[in-house]
Amino acid sequence: MRPAPNPQDIAEAVREAMFAKDRASQALGMRVEAIAPGRARVCMTVREDMLNGFDICHGGLITALADTAFAFACNAGNEQTVASGIQVDIVAPSRLGDVLRAEAHEVSQGGRTGVYDVNVHNQRQELVAVFRGKSYRLKGRTVVPGLAIAHAEAE
Amino acid sequence: MRPAPNPQDIAEAVREAMFAKDRASQALGMRVEAIAPGRARVCMTVREDMLNGFDICHGGLITALADTAFAFACNAGNEQTVASGIQVDIVAPSRLGDVLRAEAHEVSQGGRTGVYDVNVHNQRQELVAVFRGKSYRLKGRTVVPGLAIAHAEAE
Amino acid sequence: MRPAPNPQDIAEAVREAMFAKDRASQALGMRVEAIAPGRARVCMTVREDMLNGFDICHGGLITALADTAFAFACNAGNEQTVASGIQVDIVAPSRLGDVLRAEAHEVSQGGRTGVYDVNVHNQRQELVAVFRGKSYRLKGRTVVPGLAIAHAEAE
Amino acid sequence: MRPAPNPQDIAEAVREAMFAKDRASQALGMRVEAIAPGRARVCMTVREDMLNGFDICHGGLITALADTAFAFACNAGNEQTVASGIQVDIVAPSRLGDVLRAEAHEVSQGGRTGVYDVNVHNQRQELVAVFRGKSYRLKGRTVVPGLAIAHAEAE
Repeated sequence: MRPAPNPQDIAEAVREAMFAKDRASQALGMRVEAIAPGRARVCMTVREDMLNGFDICHGGLITALADTAFAFACNAGNEQTVASGIQVDIVAPSRLGDVLRAEAHEVSQGGRTGVYDVNVHNQRQELVAVFRGKSYRLKGRTVVPGLAIAHAEAE
Repeated sequence: MRPAPNPQDIAEAVREAMFAKDRASQALGMRVEAIAPGRARVCMTVREDMLNGFDICHGGLITALADTAFAFACNAGNEQTVASGIQVDIVAPSRLGDVLRAEAHEVSQGGRTGVYDVNVHNQRQELVAVFRGKSYRLKGRTVVPGLAIAHAEAE
Repeated sequence: MRPAPNPQDIAEAVREAMFAKDRASQALGMRVEAIAPGRARVCMTVREDMLNGFDICHGGLITALADTAFAFACNAGNEQTVASGIQVDIVAPSRLGDVLRAEAHEVSQGGRTGVYDVNVHNQRQELVAVFRGKSYRLKGRTVVPGLAIAHAEAE
Repeated sequence: MRPAPNPQDIAEAVREAMFAKDRASQALGMRVEAIAPGRARVCMTVREDMLNGFDICHGGLITALADTAFAFACNAGNEQTVASGIQVDIVAPSRLGDVLRAEAHEVSQGGRTGVYDVNVHNQRQELVAVFRGKSYRLKGRTVVPGLAIAHAEAE
């Protein structure tokens, strides 16, 4: 009998499979630098085509970065989970060439709904945005078919 | 003496100048279909490179669409205004080829801070997202230099 | 055979039963002035014991008012529904003696989750707060035992 | 010449003066257990008159508790600061007799606006609610007249 994969192995398999299909995150040049049960770190460099009319990074794209980190963190256990609501505060402007890092972690998980926080820092370790997402779990549906669901993640 | 431009003329001049410099919204194929004091409507078609790993439009890009509509609505009076916080609920999935329309309007404006709502519908008039943004006005700073500030906008 | 009660009758029966047990809303002097499928209006007068250190109504109590309106609106169909998250912007101060009216209405309902908006005005029809709540429906559980669930409410 | 009071002394003087006038927090039986620059801890026991129709603590009153902790944390430097928006997720129900503790801390402060997080736990150290507040500072206005403003707080 094959042993069940451990939660970290599941998380890494989910990262690979999800990212391969995530054309939006790829097109924005994101890299999923790290993943673990209930956690993910995603990085993005601010490009010319991400600037708004005030010459700073469009807030929606900082949101997209945080949202990707949130999605990887809450799906890391291989049970399909979607965002039901997000809230973002941009606390400092980001400029061309800035390297933004979004770190997501689970704050609470109960039944089908969870809360995740994502903090976004730039390359000078300055906080540029805080993001809070609510997740909703589709019970029993896997992200990667044929892979086990990690039930005890982050608890 | 030249008469002061009316609020609608100011709003349209702001739209043209802001959009010309807004590389992010251009790169995402957005079009600012309408603008008025405290209001804006922006449209975006869901492209292949906007899909996430679940084959639906990345929530961050729907947020970007709503955020652009918010930015145009709150800057339409030509007084520089930035987002201080946003909150988004995705209420239905959007798929490849869907044409999304974000309509922003002012809910409240007092002193420097305001609240704006943005509703996003698809081409079937289904609601796909609701967005609420808080704005913060940088008193006396114009968006378009040399153009008047429309003080009585939307009041 | 007795005919099924109509949605408005169900809403009124829910109001009566819920309010009778809602000691918090009673203690704060709230009155549920109106209810309908997906809608409710609740009123509260700002008392001395609702003021904070700045002599204005404590934001948490304005939130409590809006939250009660939200709860009645989303339970009006007699299917138990709880708040999963709320967001409040206080846009003007409320003072001793002000009569606040919170009007809640359904913005979106899909599957188990919904979005409701609540606007709070004072006796001069000035907007004092905007509230947005996310609801989560406990399928099949009634608020008033023995009463039918109104399935088509607000759609 | 008298030395300027240190930030911790200022915070404690603010606590005493603000709480003495905060009839709402007093009426709800709150106690400000601890204060420091950018931080506060406030406690409240769930009473019979705080229960809603589902026999759990009304969400608005949990919000009131968190909001009080937020207000003390962001005014601890003696510069008048108001909430401009709050967001609350109730993650577990609270029942009669539960002792709730709200701990607030500054997440970000830049110019006039700040972000504060408040976590609420019960007597079993279970997380029952997470709260995020945005603050807006009224430059130069003191909470306690005649007391210095602590400028370097929490930075």
